[in-house]
Amino acid sequence: MIYPYLQPSMKEEFALRYAKVKNEMKKEGCEAILIASSTNMLYLCGAIFRGYIFLYADRDPVVFMVAPSVAPADAANTYDIRKPEVISGWIEEHNLPIPDSIGLEMDDLLYSEVERLMNIFPGSAKMNASSMMRRARMVKTDFEIQKMREDGMHQAKSYSHVPKCYKEGMTDLELQIEVERILRLEGCLGYLRAAGSRMELNLGSVLSGDNADASSPYDFSMGGAGVDPSLPVGADGKTIRPGTTVMLDMNGGFNGYQSDMTRTWYLESVSDLARKAHECSRSILRELEKIALPGVPVSALYDRALEMAKEAELEDYFMGHNRKVKFIGHGIGIELNEQPVVMPRNDQPLLENMTIALEPKFVIPHVGAVGVENTYRVGKEGLDNLTIFPEELMEL
Amino acid sequence: MIYPYLQPSMKEEFALRYAKVKNEMKKEGCEAILIASSTNMLYLCGAIFRGYIFLYADRDPVVFMVAPSVAPADAANTYDIRKPEVISGWIEEHNLPIPDSIGLEMDDLLYSEVERLMNIFPGSAKMNASSMMRRARMVKTDFEIQKMREDGMHQAKSYSHVPKCYKEGMTDLELQIEVERILRLEGCLGYLRAAGSRMELNLGSVLSGDNADASSPYDFSMGGAGVDPSLPVGADGKTIRPGTTVMLDMNGGFNGYQSDMTRTWYLESVSDLARKAHECSRSILRELEKIALPGVPVSALYDRALEMAKEAELEDYFMGHNRKVKFIGHGIGIELNEQPVVMPRNDQPLLENMTIALEPKFVIPHVGAVGVENTYRVGKEGLDNLTIFPEELMEL
Repeated sequence: MIYPYLQPSMKEEFALRYAKVKNEMKKEGCEAILIASSTNMLYLCGAIFRGYIFLYADRDPVVFMVAPSVAPADAANTYDIRKPEVISGWIEEHNLPIPDSIGLEMDDLLYSEVERLMNIFPGSAKMNASSMMRRARMVKTDFEIQKMREDGMHQAKSYSHVPKCYKEGMTDLELQIEVERILRLEGCLGYLRAAGSRMELNLGSVLSGDNADASSPYDFSMGGAGVDPSLPVGADGKTIRPGTTVMLDMNGGFNGYQSDMTRTWYLESVSDLARKAHECSRSILRELEKIALPGVPVSALYDRALEMAKEAELEDYFMGHNRKVKFIGHGIGIELNEQPVVMPRNDQPLLENMTIALEPKFVIPHVGAVGVENTYRVGKEGLDNLTIFPEELMEL
Repeated sequence: MIYPYLQPSMKEEFALRYAKVKNEMKKEGCEAILIASSTNMLYLCGAIFRGYIFLYADRDPVVFMVAPSVAPADAANTYDIRKPEVISGWIEEHNLPIPDSIGLEMDDLLYSEVERLMNIFPGSAKMNASSMMRRARMVKTDFEIQKMREDGMHQAKSYSHVPKCYKEGMTDLELQIEVERILRLEGCLGYLRAAGSRMELNLGSVLSGDNADASSPYDFSMGGAGVDPSLPVGADGKTIRPGTTVMLDMNGGFNGYQSDMTRTWYLESVSDLARKAHECSRSILRELEKIALPGVPVSALYDRALEMAKEAELEDYFMGHNRKVKFIGHGIGIELNEQPVVMPRNDQPLLENMTIALEPKFVIPHVGAVGVENTYRVGKEGLDNLTIFPEELMEL
């Protein structure tokens, strides 16, 4: 097991991250946080282990490991413990203060898990560490952006194999399976790390024809009926028909971070309306790449995208036809769905080095979904695309 | 979207399930439960939707759907709502009692989700619905067992392709990717539904050589280092070497239920010790198949397995060598890790039509893991194997 936070070369990187988290804690008046979720553990230590990270707003983190995870012999601030209940005793032994307020991951851990951790600090005020961690993770470090750029390159390389994955008479699901294999061989870890309980998915979504407009209970931008009521999302197993589009929105997780990238193909021919909508998606992205400057409220991106869809008389198809969603993008990093959500009335200003996936898509009845999704870094001069790959509507 | 609970042919099946749940509620003195997790939704309605299931201990369930999920026009007891907070108003409008005690899924939902639902019933005592649902789901209906038998058949068919997936010089991960493709083409949904937050995995685990003994923070029986610190489990990407074993423990979810099945192959040759341990695993299974009768405490299976490993002088290798786990199996159904856990001191008696996966495995240094895992139904005369496939140590 590698613990990147212990590597001397990574010391500065993790110091940057701790500083961000401490800053959020200070803003909220939170004296200490106790972290147990995979996502935040990965953020603070670069690895998943069994245990806890305890962080005062004014000290370096202490890492507690529970068997079978083991504290490396030469690790500073890393201790083996049997169970989290001993942490309060450890604090006292080390002459540290029991915090007046303790942050716990209320949006990342199960109720019973949080309740157990609350009982370690009976006298402390309880705060939600999930929101502090999410805000801290919203603006990425250069190292994180580099990781996501690598994701984008792997994902682009995988997508370049899509046309040769297709064979005549294939179903959407059969095509998806061949693309999954290409992604896995390219290094995709095959696990979707996402916030909340409304993001169940296998390795991605392939949508063709009217299935693009099928309702799904999940929080993805496009739906799809799926092939079984136990996972009602994505490909529905129908043969891809000439004149329909095939939208691929596959898993871009290769290294603990993710990129999110959608491209659209068509079989044999496609209607002028679908072509027009696809070009509108690209125009929206070109426009947003320019106007998405630090300081601009996130909602301005949504509003401008909707305005452009209206100007092109494509509002009926924008972000779904029968089933519409009210967002055109989302933050992304360790989790697929990070802050900020690009939606109306979200006044959060864009900040330099936020990473956001923008996916202005359209659903054309009887044709399918069209449009492009890229993952971007917010730069001083506009958006910096991390998912560089041809954006044209391409023939399968 | 298909809602099996609405199909006339399924009416009896779901009535059986409601009866089991109500029985657990009555035992606990819980007047009503409110269900929101995918797993329990699937159990009570046969489908995932966005919404809630509200069940009094003495009435049929009421289903509340939140957009984009929509109540079917002809559905009894199914209502569209905007948000869960309206449920208490709905109860009063329908002249039903606000329950004195309300069960919520404290081991299945996030802290903030449960807290939100608690606020709907400010005056009601809060109980843990997760444990009641788990006990209700422990004994399967004939319909559920048939689903799991189908899983087992699909999984067996997939495993029959393993030798032709292997090509000389492959890594464990490359082999896994080809097997994943076969599983997906056979209908595997590609999503692992598991309880708790310590079960992150892609489509399964392939372990070869010493990686079988690498520590993993997860709750799986065998570990593996994985290929990235963000998912430290399973294949480590090393070339499969002659003289080592390759243990496959892949995803068996094809229809909302799961089977769990492990088989072991070897490359070119394998040590006598490994062969002996593999045969010991098979002997343990044969023995447990006979003694696992309704009424027998679950711990007796663990104790007998350990005793047989000791008799064969293989205790050092049993359930891991450097990293050992203290269980040899687990209940299985909609989730991979259901009740009961087959471990020491679990006095839960076996019940007819429980389904359990038994996995007495061994780790032989420098060779790898050996052993067999089957998923069984507990029958009147002993265990009924749902995962029928040759069990010999097979050459790749």
